[in-house]
Amino acid sequence: MADGIAFQREQLVRFGHCDPAGIVFYPRYFEMLNELVEDWFAQGLGLPFEQLIGQRRLGLPTVHLDTRFRRVSRQGDRLLQRLRLRRVGGSSLALTVSFDGDDGTRVEFDQVLVCTSLDTHAACPLPDDLRAALARAEETP
Amino acid sequence: MADGIAFQREQLVRFGHCDPAGIVFYPRYFEMLNELVEDWFAQGLGLPFEQLIGQRRLGLPTVHLDTRFRRVSRQGDRLLQRLRLRRVGGSSLALTVSFDGDDGTRVEFDQVLVCTSLDTHAACPLPDDLRAALARAEETP
Amino acid sequence: MADGIAFQREQLVRFGHCDPAGIVFYPRYFEMLNELVEDWFAQGLGLPFEQLIGQRRLGLPTVHLDTRFRRVSRQGDRLLQRLRLRRVGGSSLALTVSFDGDDGTRVEFDQVLVCTSLDTHAACPLPDDLRAALARAEETP
Amino acid sequence: MADGIAFQREQLVRFGHCDPAGIVFYPRYFEMLNELVEDWFAQGLGLPFEQLIGQRRLGLPTVHLDTRFRRVSRQGDRLLQRLRLRRVGGSSLALTVSFDGDDGTRVEFDQVLVCTSLDTHAACPLPDDLRAALARAEETP
Repeated sequence: MADGIAFQREQLVRFGHCDPAGIVFYPRYFEMLNELVEDWFAQGLGLPFEQLIGQRRLGLPTVHLDTRFRRVSRQGDRLLQRLRLRRVGGSSLALTVSFDGDDGTRVEFDQVLVCTSLDTHAACPLPDDLRAALARAEETP
Repeated sequence: MADGIAFQREQLVRFGHCDPAGIVFYPRYFEMLNELVEDWFAQGLGLPFEQLIGQRRLGLPTVHLDTRFRRVSRQGDRLLQRLRLRRVGGSSLALTVSFDGDDGTRVEFDQVLVCTSLDTHAACPLPDDLRAALARAEETP
Repeated sequence: MADGIAFQREQLVRFGHCDPAGIVFYPRYFEMLNELVEDWFAQGLGLPFEQLIGQRRLGLPTVHLDTRFRRVSRQGDRLLQRLRLRRVGGSSLALTVSFDGDDGTRVEFDQVLVCTSLDTHAACPLPDDLRAALARAEETP
Repeated sequence: MADGIAFQREQLVRFGHCDPAGIVFYPRYFEMLNELVEDWFAQGLGLPFEQLIGQRRLGLPTVHLDTRFRRVSRQGDRLLQRLRLRRVGGSSLALTVSFDGDDGTRVEFDQVLVCTSLDTHAACPLPDDLRAALARAEETP
């Protein structure tokens, strides 16, 4: 994909995402963000969460998340979600994600995730196969 | 309250907040944050959300939210939630919120909320009674 | 579709659906159920919720829901969701829905929804176009 | 407590519980139900979930849940939640729970939970201390 986009998909804004004001209740955006990252790992990187978490006992908690809410979203809207890989560190990765509607960007996230051991919750190096998959994602023009 | 704390309360980490890794699933922290702000409006400022939203047709959407996740939280933990009022603008307010466990801060949020019309979703001045209540909250030593 | 199935789709069990026991937290099944009915209305019946709710001010609250949880579901499972239309009344519809995994049925729901006015929350007759769409769904072998 | 009520508490209906129709989104009632049962175990029975699940590796999944939604609930409502213990079996317990507003019962649940091993997800006998605590709850007039 162009412009450094590592993964993208569409998300329907559902009835259950919306609040009494008729717009997305903002905690639901973070559920959508987690689903996007989950799909990127499974479909884009070939490393489903349930393998990392269940079998290898690795976690990928978020340590920093900066979010700008730019426009409201309503039930029935279709959001184009785009994930860019900003940086790969020794045990972390930094993403920029946007959710766009037909009037422009609705929400933007800068997210840093860290690889941890689920037994100690301490940071650990990104495993080799994840590092290799991220390198391939970075190379994709 | 001391140190510019405008409102505080305790939050139990529940089974339903936690993920297969046994720690709080981060979108649940934002549900907790929204509940804290809701309780501050109702109990601290004397302006329940349902009055603002239902009767006056005013919204208070979040436009910026910067979150640092510092330590994991587990089921059964009790979090001390503290809300500081950082700045009151013409149509916005800026908060700093921390959720602390017995080992230190678990999560910290810098949040900016803007007052909007629920009919147009455009920004509008903070209503006078809200402005007065915020001024009283800022004065409290 | 055969066997009186009015609508079906597949649902991925996600990380965010699961609890510290590693299985679906049961309130998440009801979110999935609501999404299924929402997709049936939009895709199967051609009457998206946002039209009914937003424009016509009609609601479709659930009045009765009997649920049997038969087997656990885990992250990464794919559930086949099948919706059967059991009965259409003057202002209500009765559904039977199953979520199946590869080892058999995981959850089964008998759900009754009632058409209401969103202004009074009182029951009202199913609108003609919804009634016609339901009749077509019932005829489908 | 009278009338076979084993546990009760009050629940505030929050902004985040409500949908674009301005009433409680029904999956949120099941989150409330789970929190009520969680508080009953911790406060009423003296057996917090995190001990059962985390240390003893026992689960208490719901196998049957029959729910009648009788009246709508709105943001700001206070619900009186009452839990009755209907039956204690070898490995299961049956509850009846009501959430009442000032106009009468809003929702009623008949719930059956089964004690399982978290390693096999097979049913297992209720542990002795849970059985003893349930017996005390049944005796309370």
